[in-house]
Amino acid sequence: MPDPVDPVALTAALVRCPSVTPEEGGALVLLEELLSAAGFACTRVDRNGTPNLFARWGEKGAAKSFGFNGHTDVVPVGDHAAWRVDPFGGEISDGILWGRGAVDMKSGVAAFAAAAADFVRDTPPDGAILLAITGDEEGGSADGTVALLDWMARAGEAMSVCLVGEPTCPETMGEMIKIGRRGSLSAFVTVTGVQGHSAYPHRAKNPLPAMARLMDRLASAALDDGTAHFDPSTLAVVTIDTGNGATNVIPARSRATVNIRFNDRHSGDSLTAWLEAEAADVAEAFDVAIDVVVKVSGEAFLTPPGALSDLVAGAVAAETGVTPVLSTTGGTSDARFVKDHCPVVEFGLVGQTMHEVDERVPVAQIGQLKGIYRRILADYFG
Amino acid sequence: MPDPVDPVALTAALVRCPSVTPEEGGALVLLEELLSAAGFACTRVDRNGTPNLFARWGEKGAAKSFGFNGHTDVVPVGDHAAWRVDPFGGEISDGILWGRGAVDMKSGVAAFAAAAADFVRDTPPDGAILLAITGDEEGGSADGTVALLDWMARAGEAMSVCLVGEPTCPETMGEMIKIGRRGSLSAFVTVTGVQGHSAYPHRAKNPLPAMARLMDRLASAALDDGTAHFDPSTLAVVTIDTGNGATNVIPARSRATVNIRFNDRHSGDSLTAWLEAEAADVAEAFDVAIDVVVKVSGEAFLTPPGALSDLVAGAVAAETGVTPVLSTTGGTSDARFVKDHCPVVEFGLVGQTMHEVDERVPVAQIGQLKGIYRRILADYFG
Ligand SMILES: [Zn+2]
Ligand SMILES: [Zn+2]
Repeated sequence: MPDPVDPVALTAALVRCPSVTPEEGGALVLLEELLSAAGFACTRVDRNGTPNLFARWGEKGAAKSFGFNGHTDVVPVGDHAAWRVDPFGGEISDGILWGRGAVDMKSGVAAFAAAAADFVRDTPPDGAILLAITGDEEGGSADGTVALLDWMARAGEAMSVCLVGEPTCPETMGEMIKIGRRGSLSAFVTVTGVQGHSAYPHRAKNPLPAMARLMDRLASAALDDGTAHFDPSTLAVVTIDTGNGATNVIPARSRATVNIRFNDRHSGDSLTAWLEAEAADVAEAFDVAIDVVVKVSGEAFLTPPGALSDLVAGAVAAETGVTPVLSTTGGTSDARFVKDHCPVVEFGLVGQTMHEVDERVPVAQIGQLKGIYRRILADYFG
Repeated sequence: MPDPVDPVALTAALVRCPSVTPEEGGALVLLEELLSAAGFACTRVDRNGTPNLFARWGEKGAAKSFGFNGHTDVVPVGDHAAWRVDPFGGEISDGILWGRGAVDMKSGVAAFAAAAADFVRDTPPDGAILLAITGDEEGGSADGTVALLDWMARAGEAMSVCLVGEPTCPETMGEMIKIGRRGSLSAFVTVTGVQGHSAYPHRAKNPLPAMARLMDRLASAALDDGTAHFDPSTLAVVTIDTGNGATNVIPARSRATVNIRFNDRHSGDSLTAWLEAEAADVAEAFDVAIDVVVKVSGEAFLTPPGALSDLVAGAVAAETGVTPVLSTTGGTSDARFVKDHCPVVEFGLVGQTMHEVDERVPVAQIGQLKGIYRRILADYFG
């Protein structure tokens, strides 16, 4: 029997590819070589210059098609001088693999690719395994996983279920599976009045009292008390800015940004309507103009606990002895796109140092993750 | 009888002195020459580089000493290219004198100097006439009129009454005398919380809801309904700034500035105490730190209607046919310093173009103003 694919060496090799969004950096090329050699049919699905890789083992249209989604792009290194190592060196010492992407999420991609390559070679399943790996998850994402899913739909490449390999564990390996995510939107609020002299406020229309009232109302609102699988929705006023340096001037305009993380009781549309109604109410009371522009990053979604989450949780428990909680906490991920196509859950390693200087992961965790992914495949097709 | 001093030519000569604060620009030197020639004892009372001129006709310590306060410094020209004339050209055409300071307040200084020079020569009074002319009213004022008043107190140079020659008429010559001014203060508010990620607001302490609540409370407060001689006090939130460009970050800190124009029902101290109490209340409710730094530009003051305002109003009515209203509206002036020494009122010409591009005044108004000032002197000593 040939040697198993080493997920640690593969992660290190991927870290050495400087694939800062939107650079391919050699990472997808490397993966394509490995997967092709393992019998996967590979297709680069680049769109508008964004590199993406699709790979399938088994027949197109198989009744059981296990999908995996991940990304090889990484965020910038930040303060290069603050790193203890070369962020693209892939250095391993004392059981720790260092570098940008070591956690988010070259290790996840490497662990699944290694698990899948071994699995199809040792125990060829009755079905298909699909990988949809993007080179743009950290950036705008417009031509990343979305482009892969668009292409797959046109090409008849369907996933029965999908696992997203993002880091999901807050502190301990195995403790958390994500079965959904809150939605996220930002509202950009502009209050416009009439400039004037602060000694004669009745001749001006100060936008700031209206801004203060509106932000107080929004920040004080209880959006909900949480739902079956979600925490309460939250609203954060993240900035209010006016830029008026003169104490004797009443400004014409002030701007604010509000960020809402919302559960499945709301939608981007319902919250936009609520924000616009609150703004209109305050605008009328203060006789100013209030403009609200909403940008929805993602809707809330949930893959209700069931076969897929049981499958992943069982494999995690068997490999680590830890029973994972099913969570919907945290920010957004590309699962928000996948959820329109098939049931999707997310499981990966501990995310503590992701996006930070000195991003790093214990190599043992990468081995564990490969073991969990391989067991998921075995149980799915078993 | 010698020719009277021409206040229009004198204003034009002063406009030609580029005395943008803190530059003397030749303006006080010119005045000193003219007043010395007219029999005034002149003393430069410069302090910390700020030029000031004191001049007295008559005996020090005279029982009746009429004081005049004004300034020769001017604000910057602003957008030089937007001017229709050289702002320091002193150009006169079609009965209009153009230039920076033509209104605020080289014309006022020239009109009084011309009136006083003619008056003491033609009808020498039984008493003294004092001029306290500063070269820094538009700037920080720390070494301007304050320095003159300090020096005068030490030198035994007392004014029985004082007229400040700032422009006081909103639209029509003669329509307004100022018998007091509202006080002014600015409060600089800093709300400090704990930075965090907007997906996890419970781990952060967002300063912005507290800021919005505090600014809403302050802007909604009715400070008073006005007093016998004052309009209601006003409060303007002039800026709120945070500078957080990231929608996924809850900021640590936000700053705001509040400007209050207050009448004689309040003082800088009473308003500071109120602001601090409001801030403490909100800080406790939101579990954040709120720092309030108050800078009082001037306390409210009033010279109650009486002999001095009757004197000025009578002269105005006699010269213009207009009965002036006694007002306490508008911003601050150096009268706020003079009021600690003697009764003070303010009267000058129409202020419409002051501080603007194309500052200008009808030459006829300067002549009228000289006539009014001369009649005030005659009536005071008569
Ligand atoms: Zn990631
Ligand atoms: Zn002035």
